[in-house]
Amino acid sequence: ERCYKIAVLPGDGIGSEIMAVTLDILQKLGQIYAINFTFSEALIGGVAIDQTGHPLPPATLELCRASDGILLGAVGGPQWDDLPSHLRPEQALLGLRSGLNLFANLRPAKVFPELVQASTLKPEVIAGVDLLVVRELTGGIYFGQPKGIFTSETGEQRGVNTMAYRASEIDRIGRVAFEAAQKRNKKLCSVDKANVLEVSQLWRQCINALVPEYPEVTLTHLYVDNAAMQLIRWPQQFDVMVTGNLFGDILSDEAAMLTGSIGMLPSASLGATGPGVFEPVHGTAPDIAGQDVANPLAQILSAAMLLRYGLSEAQAADALETAVAQVLRRGYRTGDIYTEGTQRVGCRGMGAQVAAA
Amino acid sequence: ERCYKIAVLPGDGIGSEIMAVTLDILQKLGQIYAINFTFSEALIGGVAIDQTGHPLPPATLELCRASDGILLGAVGGPQWDDLPSHLRPEQALLGLRSGLNLFANLRPAKVFPELVQASTLKPEVIAGVDLLVVRELTGGIYFGQPKGIFTSETGEQRGVNTMAYRASEIDRIGRVAFEAAQKRNKKLCSVDKANVLEVSQLWRQCINALVPEYPEVTLTHLYVDNAAMQLIRWPQQFDVMVTGNLFGDILSDEAAMLTGSIGMLPSASLGATGPGVFEPVHGTAPDIAGQDVANPLAQILSAAMLLRYGLSEAQAADALETAVAQVLRRGYRTGDIYTEGTQRVGCRGMGAQVAAA
Ligand SMILES: CC(C)[C@H](C(=O)O)[C@@H](O)C(=O)O
Ligand SMILES: CC(C)[C@H](C(=O)O)[C@@H](O)C(=O)O
Repeated sequence: ERCYKIAVLPGDGIGSEIMAVTLDILQKLGQIYAINFTFSEALIGGVAIDQTGHPLPPATLELCRASDGILLGAVGGPQWDDLPSHLRPEQALLGLRSGLNLFANLRPAKVFPELVQASTLKPEVIAGVDLLVVRELTGGIYFGQPKGIFTSETGEQRGVNTMAYRASEIDRIGRVAFEAAQKRNKKLCSVDKANVLEVSQLWRQCINALVPEYPEVTLTHLYVDNAAMQLIRWPQQFDVMVTGNLFGDILSDEAAMLTGSIGMLPSASLGATGPGVFEPVHGTAPDIAGQDVANPLAQILSAAMLLRYGLSEAQAADALETAVAQVLRRGYRTGDIYTEGTQRVGCRGMGAQVAAA
Repeated sequence: ERCYKIAVLPGDGIGSEIMAVTLDILQKLGQIYAINFTFSEALIGGVAIDQTGHPLPPATLELCRASDGILLGAVGGPQWDDLPSHLRPEQALLGLRSGLNLFANLRPAKVFPELVQASTLKPEVIAGVDLLVVRELTGGIYFGQPKGIFTSETGEQRGVNTMAYRASEIDRIGRVAFEAAQKRNKKLCSVDKANVLEVSQLWRQCINALVPEYPEVTLTHLYVDNAAMQLIRWPQQFDVMVTGNLFGDILSDEAAMLTGSIGMLPSASLGATGPGVFEPVHGTAPDIAGQDVANPLAQILSAAMLLRYGLSEAQAADALETAVAQVLRRGYRTGDIYTEGTQRVGCRGMGAQVAAA
């Protein structure tokens, strides 16, 4: 029996409901595949602010460091929106990323055949879309120095942030993307703004330098403005996209919304060594929290990514993803993806169906 | 009779064809509205590189400065893609913007009822979309210092760009946006990344500071990743959006592609004083250049923006926009927007229909 210590950070809003359902499923899966999970829960986000004054308490980061993988729900909510920025729930995400050196963010945007009509795009444009955005997560303008609001000699305020990448940072995220492409459909599109930004020129140069090592992968480049258009014009053209932190933030959310069912989308944030963070793409949905109506599938699919990328338990990951696909085929839907003729279930109900499958 | 000197920069690819058609129409319109146009043509982009070695020759910038408004076609093409970046056609655009201090870029994304089906979005999602992106165009990461590729002490390369805004830069673009909103549906959405970037925190603070001066306008804020999603989820919710140079580059192109007919979309780039630049959103389409099949309507609608925003000839601008709408209603289409049951015309044919209308 393999044993894994999993840090569990439900966070705010619907986080605890979708997490509870997911842990039950993992336990069940563990029994089948002879995997022993030890779950240890810790505070993060708004609840952590309320209870400790800090969105990412040191004890939480420590627990994460001592774990084999981290399952995260979601953080934030209106009641913490007016705090000074260093105390806001989002800081917990940035703190986890830099604290655990999670430089690679994997954001799949996959359209399930049963949910094609959930998209605002025409069915023939969105059907079959299955792309992966590989976003650099610990560099670029999110962390570059100098940054701040400064007062100039004339007394005028000036806001400054720095978008910077070292060659080695680009190289390592590039390798993650090439490797992902090699395991998928062997197409990689790198996104930058090399016609304007020097940092993008270095980006392009470093990505190009990897081509000889991955001869099976076809590499293309797009400017970020064009990429934002191509995702809408013809999303099926993409397999893997790789880009920096800021462009990845924008494009991965755009790609997610194309699918029309953001309650279905998981993500993984990985470092070179050490535990990764696995979390849904959606937010805390405070308006429906506590009502047992939230869609737990993004959280469940995040657990599948934990199994696959964090614990190398590919068999169990496959089983879990297959179960989700089956439940959709059988017609079970939470409110966010409900359409006439399907079977409406709540958060726990959906979890039970996945567990059964 | 009012007299205007118009600098005409056709540029590359289809630029000269769509420009020729547009100038004919302006002449005709001038006869009706007692406006006398003097057109002076100059080199820009790839043709300028070929003939002078520079994408924006000093003589062109001088002609522009001495004009009342600048009509631009499009620049670029594969034959200039491998030049060093300071010699690339795009540099001409950046040079015009900074040389003429064109800090305000207006990018309308409007869906004509007849072209709803051209979008990859469902008709009910895209119908009636009529939004305006106001993009800051001479600041932010496009021009911020320091920038470059530097070699660190360890010998590693590091690419750097700086996203910076002074309060006064935010204030003046904010005013343009509030004023535009006041003349339209009185909704303004400011887009930033204030949960991560200090420059965005200053942006938000300066935009908020304008609220008392425009009491009729309702201001909201979105983070750029959310804005990229909302444009796909529910584009009809937007009236005017205002944002910085880089976010505006991405979001205005995203909004353009939502309409599905990028051959229809004009833009205006304006300074505080002096002439503005009016140009289509689309590129040079080298694959169809010289075949009289290009869609001239974006160029024609750019001329309407020249009339409206550059020359304060609102009546003539209205007439021109009405003519374009009428030609579409009458069923005339270039190849890019052709559908069964409509009347296919070439570039000159479309121009003739607009002139007649
Ligand atoms: C909350 C915010 C700091 C975060 C980001 O910008 O990275 C979020 O948008 C995300 O994509 O995970
Ligand atoms: C060509 C490029 C420099 C330019 C920009 O990024 O501003 C273009 O994308 C635009 O939007 O006009």
